[in-house]
Amino acid sequence: MKSKLLTVDTLNPNIKNVEYAVRGPIVQLASKLEKELEQGVKKPFENVVKANIGDCHAVGQKPITFIRQVIAACMYPDLIEQGIFPKDINERAKQILNGTKMSLGCYSESQGIEFVRKSVASYIEKRDGYPADMNTIFLTNGASTSVKLILQCFISPKDVTGVMIPIPQYPLYSATISEFGMQQIGYYLNEAENWKLDLAELKRSIDEAKQHCKPKVLCVINPGNPTGQVLPYNNIREIIEFCMEENLFLLADEVYQDNTYGSEQFHSFKKVLRDMGPKGDGFEMASFHSVSKGYMGECGLRGGYVEVIGLADDVLLELKKLQSAQLCSNTVGQIVVDCITNPPKPGDESYDLYKKEKADVLDSLKTRGKMVYEILNSIEGVSCNEVMGAMYAFPRIVLPKKAIEKAESIGEKPDFFYCKSLLLEAGLCVVPGSGFGQQEGTFHFRMTILPPVEQIKSFLERFKAFHLKFVETYS
Amino acid sequence: MKSKLLTVDTLNPNIKNVEYAVRGPIVQLASKLEKELEQGVKKPFENVVKANIGDCHAVGQKPITFIRQVIAACMYPDLIEQGIFPKDINERAKQILNGTKMSLGCYSESQGIEFVRKSVASYIEKRDGYPADMNTIFLTNGASTSVKLILQCFISPKDVTGVMIPIPQYPLYSATISEFGMQQIGYYLNEAENWKLDLAELKRSIDEAKQHCKPKVLCVINPGNPTGQVLPYNNIREIIEFCMEENLFLLADEVYQDNTYGSEQFHSFKKVLRDMGPKGDGFEMASFHSVSKGYMGECGLRGGYVEVIGLADDVLLELKKLQSAQLCSNTVGQIVVDCITNPPKPGDESYDLYKKEKADVLDSLKTRGKMVYEILNSIEGVSCNEVMGAMYAFPRIVLPKKAIEKAESIGEKPDFFYCKSLLLEAGLCVVPGSGFGQQEGTFHFRMTILPPVEQIKSFLERFKAFHLKFVETYS
Repeated sequence: MKSKLLTVDTLNPNIKNVEYAVRGPIVQLASKLEKELEQGVKKPFENVVKANIGDCHAVGQKPITFIRQVIAACMYPDLIEQGIFPKDINERAKQILNGTKMSLGCYSESQGIEFVRKSVASYIEKRDGYPADMNTIFLTNGASTSVKLILQCFISPKDVTGVMIPIPQYPLYSATISEFGMQQIGYYLNEAENWKLDLAELKRSIDEAKQHCKPKVLCVINPGNPTGQVLPYNNIREIIEFCMEENLFLLADEVYQDNTYGSEQFHSFKKVLRDMGPKGDGFEMASFHSVSKGYMGECGLRGGYVEVIGLADDVLLELKKLQSAQLCSNTVGQIVVDCITNPPKPGDESYDLYKKEKADVLDSLKTRGKMVYEILNSIEGVSCNEVMGAMYAFPRIVLPKKAIEKAESIGEKPDFFYCKSLLLEAGLCVVPGSGFGQQEGTFHFRMTILPPVEQIKSFLERFKAFHLKFVETYS
Repeated sequence: MKSKLLTVDTLNPNIKNVEYAVRGPIVQLASKLEKELEQGVKKPFENVVKANIGDCHAVGQKPITFIRQVIAACMYPDLIEQGIFPKDINERAKQILNGTKMSLGCYSESQGIEFVRKSVASYIEKRDGYPADMNTIFLTNGASTSVKLILQCFISPKDVTGVMIPIPQYPLYSATISEFGMQQIGYYLNEAENWKLDLAELKRSIDEAKQHCKPKVLCVINPGNPTGQVLPYNNIREIIEFCMEENLFLLADEVYQDNTYGSEQFHSFKKVLRDMGPKGDGFEMASFHSVSKGYMGECGLRGGYVEVIGLADDVLLELKKLQSAQLCSNTVGQIVVDCITNPPKPGDESYDLYKKEKADVLDSLKTRGKMVYEILNSIEGVSCNEVMGAMYAFPRIVLPKKAIEKAESIGEKPDFFYCKSLLLEAGLCVVPGSGFGQQEGTFHFRMTILPPVEQIKSFLERFKAFHLKFVETYS
């Protein structure tokens, strides 16, 4: 038999370089353990608790009724005539069908359905107090596709494009940078100051990088994933000024903009930019949002958008053309974007339930974030910044020297070894900090605050017992 | 003000090279004319008929009830309890929810929901009479994303990868080849023999290409887009043997496998490969399918799959990893894939309606294909091969010399000039053959057979009147 045409050696090497820890080997092991438990295999725990991924409905969060009724009515319009849903849902479904050639089964405009882009523009205007233009908004299959769309613009045959990303980062960024053959420029977030961005560190990382690539883009995630911070207004302004000085295109990952629980309010990068007045004119950036997070958590429906700001008109046309070859993003995800940017209003029949469901989710996340923060910090050898936003805690753990040696002796990263032990011994699934990046010699993991309150409590108890035993074992 | 960071000059040059005629300037002009008609502007026609894109529901095709009821029930499970839908729909929705962590809002496995991949594997086994493995099936947002996933594997830092594509082709291929910086190797389909693939022409094109790139992939579209042919069994076998001899990975675009209307039956490339026995062992190929076409036409819901065959295990793992960074394809599209690969069975409450709706669509497409073929061929200066499958006719038109000169004098391709005139004078929107590629000196256009029978009739009458007048004007 002939040798294969496509082998790991002949495969596009950029694909080989891609890593994505959020669905890595720890998570695969968790699924295996779950199946074994189902089959009656005995384990030191009764169930696996997955706190590895921001998958809200998977841990029991209920969908927002309003969103699901709108989609069901659009999907099967007989339901509208049958009067099953509230009046405003029926009206809305009819409007949507009118705006989508009477079926969600039609291709939409490649850039996204026009009335949805209008809703997004109004939402942004209301959020920021500054104009937004639906022609600069692209609807995509979740924010991940938006990020790829924009980063792709910076691939260059002449230079190695450098992309600045936070460390720790959400690994979509490192994965996409690898996939596009770009160079990752990691800047460390300041753990001691609630994971804010330090100008000196930004400067250090870009100066170092200039020796081996051409820095073109700065990515910021706010609220932070995996770190859960919400950036102060002044820090955002400093970051914009840094981009101006260094001629960097700014990517603002703002998918957790509805998820803030602490003292710090969310400020969009665009608002801060516009507040700068004429100085900000012509600044080029992109802001991402998603239906996967917030209070709705509709991850599986894959809806998201990017607003591009300051882009040259002819570049905008190139982006539209590129989108057209993929025809369009899925229309259901687009309709969810419409629902969250143009929700029911006071007086609408659906309003009260919508308001209650939304508040319940966000209040409960706040409670859970506080609980995770407080209990983690009460454990010897564990410390954690406040969960100010997003859906994650990123605690730091002090590992005994013997544990580090043990891990290294079996060729594993110490935090990976720790998280694997946590899964095997306590049934708790989290992601090692090395999957996101961390300061050399420090160890962390990312956990979501998504499991229901009782489950989070039990999670934290099991975690505490494990951690103390682990430290004892290796002391 | 500083100059822009992102300009047409600094933009990724591969993006600039992308072209996608199906949504190009003619279509944009059609939308503009439609808006003007709405505003009461007088035109030489009363309406614009869009026959440019295979967007079934947009021209009035009704969704398949069974598919829409299943999705509505999964989206808003209260409907299941309310007993609104047939019993088998309710049962199916419950099974789907059980297999998706109780909400379509959950992320699925990155490769696709397991039970859906099982349905796809069973469907393929039944279609071909040979085994299929759900581990080699990837569910994606329509087939376009699948094609990109597989082609991406062949990007190489060392060689310029050559990809053989039919001329005429569906421009997703040329667009993706440009986007990935690969080299397009066009092989001409034989118009005189129902657009089949000629071995001599395949050989000519690859031999020529070897001088400036490394050919690695052969793409075939069967049933053909834009050409509407269905390849005979022996031609498929010859193509496989050609790939074996030339060490080419085969991409079989089989998204129109349910759309055959003529004398020639659809044979999947995989079946023909397996029929070859041990000689075919280890052969590497990929086959694509979609929910956008067939009898359901659910374009906007973006569901599709690729089955990879003969892929090395470690390459398969790399593909799975690459998919994971995009989390998953939209779950609604995945459920539609399940519906079409595992439809209602005799005895199910939904079966009779499903069977009738499916047959009605396919029978009517057959009627329309025949009508288009016959009427086009009755017009002096127009000739068209039989519409054996897919949803398109690709007629050849003889253009008067003066028309060609006129077009060239205003810097337009003659077929573009012709199609633009057809739109401006008769309100008919089709895509110029140059958007798909054609033999030098020949001119064609692609039209869909999708508008309802009465509309197609009127389309063909308006077309005939336009064509005769056009020829007269330029004679």
